[in-house]
Amino acid sequence: MEHKGFTLWFTGLSGAGKSTLAEYVVKQLREKNMKVEVLDGDVVRTNLSKGLGFSKEDRDINIYRIGWVCEVLSRNNVVAVAAAISPYREVRDNVRKKIENFVEIYVEVPIEEVISRDVKGLYKKALAGEIKNFTGISDPYEAPENPEVVCNTAEETIEESGQKILAYLDKAGLLPS
Amino acid sequence: MEHKGFTLWFTGLSGAGKSTLAEYVVKQLREKNMKVEVLDGDVVRTNLSKGLGFSKEDRDINIYRIGWVCEVLSRNNVVAVAAAISPYREVRDNVRKKIENFVEIYVEVPIEEVISRDVKGLYKKALAGEIKNFTGISDPYEAPENPEVVCNTAEETIEESGQKILAYLDKAGLLPS
Repeated sequence: MEHKGFTLWFTGLSGAGKSTLAEYVVKQLREKNMKVEVLDGDVVRTNLSKGLGFSKEDRDINIYRIGWVCEVLSRNNVVAVAAAISPYREVRDNVRKKIENFVEIYVEVPIEEVISRDVKGLYKKALAGEIKNFTGISDPYEAPENPEVVCNTAEETIEESGQKILAYLDKAGLLPS
Repeated sequence: MEHKGFTLWFTGLSGAGKSTLAEYVVKQLREKNMKVEVLDGDVVRTNLSKGLGFSKEDRDINIYRIGWVCEVLSRNNVVAVAAAISPYREVRDNVRKKIENFVEIYVEVPIEEVISRDVKGLYKKALAGEIKNFTGISDPYEAPENPEVVCNTAEETIEESGQKILAYLDKAGLLPS
């Protein structure tokens, strides 16, 4: 069954809930028999970006690389789902320009909230100076100005946020009828 | 129109004619309305492998990365076409293991032939020691032991080689009827 390809681009701080939210949406899309590929941190580090660090330059290369794979998949009627911090607005916008159906989802959570969650213990280390170039602490995060969807996982349940995304996709004509 | 995904993997010396042959086959597949993505040297260097050199390790990373993109495309019903020297047998075989329909095309040409063609002037430089790690001169090329198709562009025209590949695809049930 053919359907349109598009890219779901989750952006937000580490620990904001990008992957969890992506997982929820992906499950729903797969139940509609849509072809979906997830490019999350693990997939990307293993297959695309081994050797890259966290300098601005390396981060940009990483995001452009993910963006290119999303572009190739999207134009072949696959749903590409990227869940990377992608802190720089200009880079996200450059990726957007190359992809016909680019859906940017800003997972917006106050920095205090992700610090208090600190699921992976990374914020503690970043605040102690043990991790350098950490987005939100020692490196900038530039929020999207016109994202297609904003989700706030501190105020909404995963289901609520996920349904917002699905409602957007439906309205945009990106779901099979 | 849905069709099966597969990977056409061209391997052979620099100047053997991998890209020219790939181009011919891709044109035929597109005329059948098949979805095709070409991962040739330029595409890969720009989008996947900036910064990688020609050491064994970097070459391997490059090939695994191309292989991963081929894998993702193939499993989503796209024809992925890779045209890279890919000199190491073990690496090609590891890529093969991950892809359901992997069609290896050995573009076999005597080293004397590519040296005399020397379209890009690279062999001259490699023989003069100006380029290091040059496959066939100062770096090994390990020919495939069981490629699906062997083409010899010194003895066959591009059309003859291309038709051999298309005949194989047809026989393997990889072309839409």
